[in-house]
Amino acid sequence: MQFADRLNNVETSAIRELFKLLGKPGIISFAGGFPDSAMFDVEGIRAASNAALAEEPGAALQYGATEGYNPLREQLAAFMTSKGAKDVAADNLIVTTGSQQALDLLGKTLISPGDKVIVEGPTFLATIQCFRLYGAELISAPIDGNGVKTDELEKLIAEHKPKFVYLIPTFGNPSGAMLSAERRKAVLEMAVKHNTLIVEDDPYGDLYFGDAPPPSLLNLSASVPGSRELLVHCGSLSKVLSPGLRVGWMIAPAELLGKATMCKQFSDAHTSTFAQATAAQYLKAGRMPGTLANVRKVYAERAEAMGDALRKELGDAIEFVQPQGGLFVWARLTGAGGKVADGNVLAKRAIEKGVAFVPGTPFFCANPDHATFRLSFATADVDKIREGVARLGQAI
Amino acid sequence: MQFADRLNNVETSAIRELFKLLGKPGIISFAGGFPDSAMFDVEGIRAASNAALAEEPGAALQYGATEGYNPLREQLAAFMTSKGAKDVAADNLIVTTGSQQALDLLGKTLISPGDKVIVEGPTFLATIQCFRLYGAELISAPIDGNGVKTDELEKLIAEHKPKFVYLIPTFGNPSGAMLSAERRKAVLEMAVKHNTLIVEDDPYGDLYFGDAPPPSLLNLSASVPGSRELLVHCGSLSKVLSPGLRVGWMIAPAELLGKATMCKQFSDAHTSTFAQATAAQYLKAGRMPGTLANVRKVYAERAEAMGDALRKELGDAIEFVQPQGGLFVWARLTGAGGKVADGNVLAKRAIEKGVAFVPGTPFFCANPDHATFRLSFATADVDKIREGVARLGQAI
Repeated sequence: MQFADRLNNVETSAIRELFKLLGKPGIISFAGGFPDSAMFDVEGIRAASNAALAEEPGAALQYGATEGYNPLREQLAAFMTSKGAKDVAADNLIVTTGSQQALDLLGKTLISPGDKVIVEGPTFLATIQCFRLYGAELISAPIDGNGVKTDELEKLIAEHKPKFVYLIPTFGNPSGAMLSAERRKAVLEMAVKHNTLIVEDDPYGDLYFGDAPPPSLLNLSASVPGSRELLVHCGSLSKVLSPGLRVGWMIAPAELLGKATMCKQFSDAHTSTFAQATAAQYLKAGRMPGTLANVRKVYAERAEAMGDALRKELGDAIEFVQPQGGLFVWARLTGAGGKVADGNVLAKRAIEKGVAFVPGTPFFCANPDHATFRLSFATADVDKIREGVARLGQAI
Repeated sequence: MQFADRLNNVETSAIRELFKLLGKPGIISFAGGFPDSAMFDVEGIRAASNAALAEEPGAALQYGATEGYNPLREQLAAFMTSKGAKDVAADNLIVTTGSQQALDLLGKTLISPGDKVIVEGPTFLATIQCFRLYGAELISAPIDGNGVKTDELEKLIAEHKPKFVYLIPTFGNPSGAMLSAERRKAVLEMAVKHNTLIVEDDPYGDLYFGDAPPPSLLNLSASVPGSRELLVHCGSLSKVLSPGLRVGWMIAPAELLGKATMCKQFSDAHTSTFAQATAAQYLKAGRMPGTLANVRKVYAERAEAMGDALRKELGDAIEFVQPQGGLFVWARLTGAGGKVADGNVLAKRAIEKGVAFVPGTPFFCANPDHATFRLSFATADVDKIREGVARLGQAI
């Protein structure tokens, strides 16, 4: 069977192969990129779903507008406004089938084969593959503990004139990094200066452990004239409420939103109205602040436990920035004292010792740093984290 | 803003413009392509959703496998088997976000720009646009009251060597036609003879009014050696249970299914597990046969009422084949006695008289027949159908 040429641009994820090993009995996994199922507000979601079926059964089970179910769009606009966004009304966003679909719609709407797109090195693996399927040539912008290096980013923009720049500024996957306030402002200013579209993917921004992070690019855009017209913001309920609902959203300039809606019409017609009506009822019921407080508290404890254990068990064998939010520790093997310095090698040894994580190389679209790896602290409890990191210490 | 080149291949549907007029008070609509909300089994869906959240809350709300939620794949395999399909196990299908996503994945997986695809003339509008977004050149195969004319189809296959042939063999949208048993066999035989992939889209096959239709291409493939390896079958719960769940599925040869799964991973990661778990519980509860019997009975009455009214009120001004299933009457203006002979002209006049339907031209990828139009009998009750057709008689 002859497949489309675009499939030559991607390969099945190396991570998928690794995930097949996770079924091994007794393994402690830091490999996942997902929230802890034990923390889902099942009772709240059940109540919301029953309210949707009681109050609006026809609408909740029927075809809906491609743009999204209007009561949900209203609730999401209010949610974004409550978090400090200006001028976000229902009409300024569309609902997507998870924020993965927002990425897909950006690819479909914007990328012609050969177009350049700048992403962080490292960035979300499924972003790399998604954009490559549309023929994008990806350019890697380097990061440090404060997120993307804006001086380097501006040089790359000037050189490559990309179709857009894709960033996860807050507690990024896999880096866990938080883009500093000054760099956020610099990103918006260079967007205006170079007339370059910026995509802010923000599934983790609500998962902060101490002080709130600096304002999102969306919030900050109100103070950088012209930047809002060059900004796309992608949000998601997956990390804070439930991935299984597949409810994300995209805020974008009107013309882009219109084209993305047309593309979505032929992708899946619309996101499940049943899931959308459930999400709308959940937000309306006012349970989100309590849910957020709960997940922040639990993940903060786990992040702290993991950081402490890593410092104790691995010492100078790794370096990492203690995460201030999100789900991930991004670490780098130093090779100190002749210890293992390659994340892929360590991943194989670690599986033998009964602990799993994801090596860093697949997260780079170019020039991978082989010393890196990603640990998720989200799904194991504090005791398992200590035990798993101890095993990691043995593997190293 | 500069969009991707592929957007030049499509335009926003003419039908969307028409749908904006449907808000006019008092209008009777035969325009929709959707089932009647009043017939949704709300109680059954509520019970299924609550069972999913009670029995498997973690799985129902967590990320899931891209291929689909396994209990649902098992139920769908059993459902297909109960309808006479051979060798359909859970592994032979993937769950899609409505069958619209199956079309999108076929486009993404198979179509390179310039590839040819044969569709019926007329066919489902969103299929045309979906495949064109991937750069397909569409070839129109003519139909009659017994579905696609297989002699003509074989000539087109030999001439154009298409990437695949897309058919809605049973109660197609918009044609309502039922491909005859002989022609079904001929389609499978020509697939083998010309080594051509056939896509059978079958959202309406369960909605028959009298005797069951001839076996689906999938069921028939067991008796045509080699044909199963050249056949894709798309199914959906949208027309029989609820479109709002967005649960469809695709049965295909293993290699194609693998590539489509990879593409789906970057389209929306997976279909809502909440909706999938709900659908699985619904099927498991054994309510589907009763639901099918109910919708068949109601739509059969409405189809009969519409046929009778059309013959009485419009007489020789139109010709049509009385539908034996599905949601649609496909009619052709004869122009008899100097009466209006253009579907678009009639649509405008009809709106003024308080009745809406969709003219036929947008359903053709080439050489539109301007005399055609589509009437849905699904969403209006028998009295409204009589009143609406009477208004249509005035408009003509």
